[in-house]
Amino acid sequence: MTTISKSPDQPSKPQAVVLLSGGLDSATVLAIASQDFDCHALSFDYGQRSLSELKAAKQLADYYAVSHQLIKIDTGVMLGSALTDQSIAVPDQHEEGIPVTYVPARNTLFLSHALAVAEVRSSNNIFIGVNAVDYSGYPDCRLEFIDAFEAMANLATKAGVEGNFLKIHTPLIDKSKAEIIALGIQLNVDYSVTVSCYQANEQGEACGHCDSCQLRSKGFENAFVSDPTRYF
Amino acid sequence: MTTISKSPDQPSKPQAVVLLSGGLDSATVLAIASQDFDCHALSFDYGQRSLSELKAAKQLADYYAVSHQLIKIDTGVMLGSALTDQSIAVPDQHEEGIPVTYVPARNTLFLSHALAVAEVRSSNNIFIGVNAVDYSGYPDCRLEFIDAFEAMANLATKAGVEGNFLKIHTPLIDKSKAEIIALGIQLNVDYSVTVSCYQANEQGEACGHCDSCQLRSKGFENAFVSDPTRYF
Repeated sequence: MTTISKSPDQPSKPQAVVLLSGGLDSATVLAIASQDFDCHALSFDYGQRSLSELKAAKQLADYYAVSHQLIKIDTGVMLGSALTDQSIAVPDQHEEGIPVTYVPARNTLFLSHALAVAEVRSSNNIFIGVNAVDYSGYPDCRLEFIDAFEAMANLATKAGVEGNFLKIHTPLIDKSKAEIIALGIQLNVDYSVTVSCYQANEQGEACGHCDSCQLRSKGFENAFVSDPTRYF
Repeated sequence: MTTISKSPDQPSKPQAVVLLSGGLDSATVLAIASQDFDCHALSFDYGQRSLSELKAAKQLADYYAVSHQLIKIDTGVMLGSALTDQSIAVPDQHEEGIPVTYVPARNTLFLSHALAVAEVRSSNNIFIGVNAVDYSGYPDCRLEFIDAFEAMANLATKAGVEGNFLKIHTPLIDKSKAEIIALGIQLNVDYSVTVSCYQANEQGEACGHCDSCQLRSKGFENAFVSDPTRYF
């Protein structure tokens, strides 16, 4: 990938902090946010099974020429999930209800870190790629959670008290996976770089079986886009 | 200090996660919570100036015979405060408004970690020693912030969605510093162990000048209790 160059003559854009996992959704969000905002991307090492998504995040940040910060979350915190505990198997099929890949308070922790970083950088905007259509069943991907977080955040910070209200942007919230992909293709997102698989190997190759792989694969099919995912 | 012993014949108590900084307020909260809950104490290393408070936290947890977890927060997050940046001086006097010792999103980050730990431990209770009377001016010490966090948390987690609602307990919220001390004395809290100073030295000795020292010292005076603080 070549890097999108920035012209020094561009008018200055407002700043935003973008949560960038390295997956399909957050790559699309970064492409969207980069159009109108000066972005700072955040990725998290929280003891997840697959670290290849963090390499993908770095590649995406480099491509969009945005600053990238990797934040380490204490491994003693987000336990008891198939994504953080090697002794719990990632299921091959979609589970009804909240699946075993649910990670306790994950988006709350990600957004809390983003809130601190945003305040330090005097930024009023956070972007997150949650969506509630073709989604995982995680409670912290719903709009009502995001709205409650935003309300809390504006009571929590000096910025909020002083009237510099934080806005959490969720540009994918109402989109199906196919719609997300179609939008990303328009914006030239290189999905071959992204890693969505819950158990991708070190090379970023996907299993093709887990819930996340199935949702992604079906998304490409429904968007009539050939699937660039590398499977092992 | 001797350790409070637990009788094996005691009926089992509900579980709680207690935020324990090692200061006067959180020590009192641990004493209160220990009466009715089986407590797990959390302390945070977030790049703060004074690490002696963490030693105090460990001593207090040992005294109350509760499990103690030290959580490391990435030092690239809570920046721009006199408490985390050695180049910003801790002021000697009380500041109007939100002081330079304000740490961006600190209680949001502490409570978010506590939320994850509580869910992993199947605990529905978090205790935090915020108080809004003789207080620091920090926005994230107000009851409206705590209420908003609780509402958000119950939308964020599997536990909340399944009806195991989280309660955030703030037993000090309406108390003056003198009232907190008077209550702690009744509960045999050893305040000589606690460290409140924003710039305590490695031995846990206090400066006696910063806002936190002044609030604490005045609290002992108003409670007619001799101040056990060790000053340098």
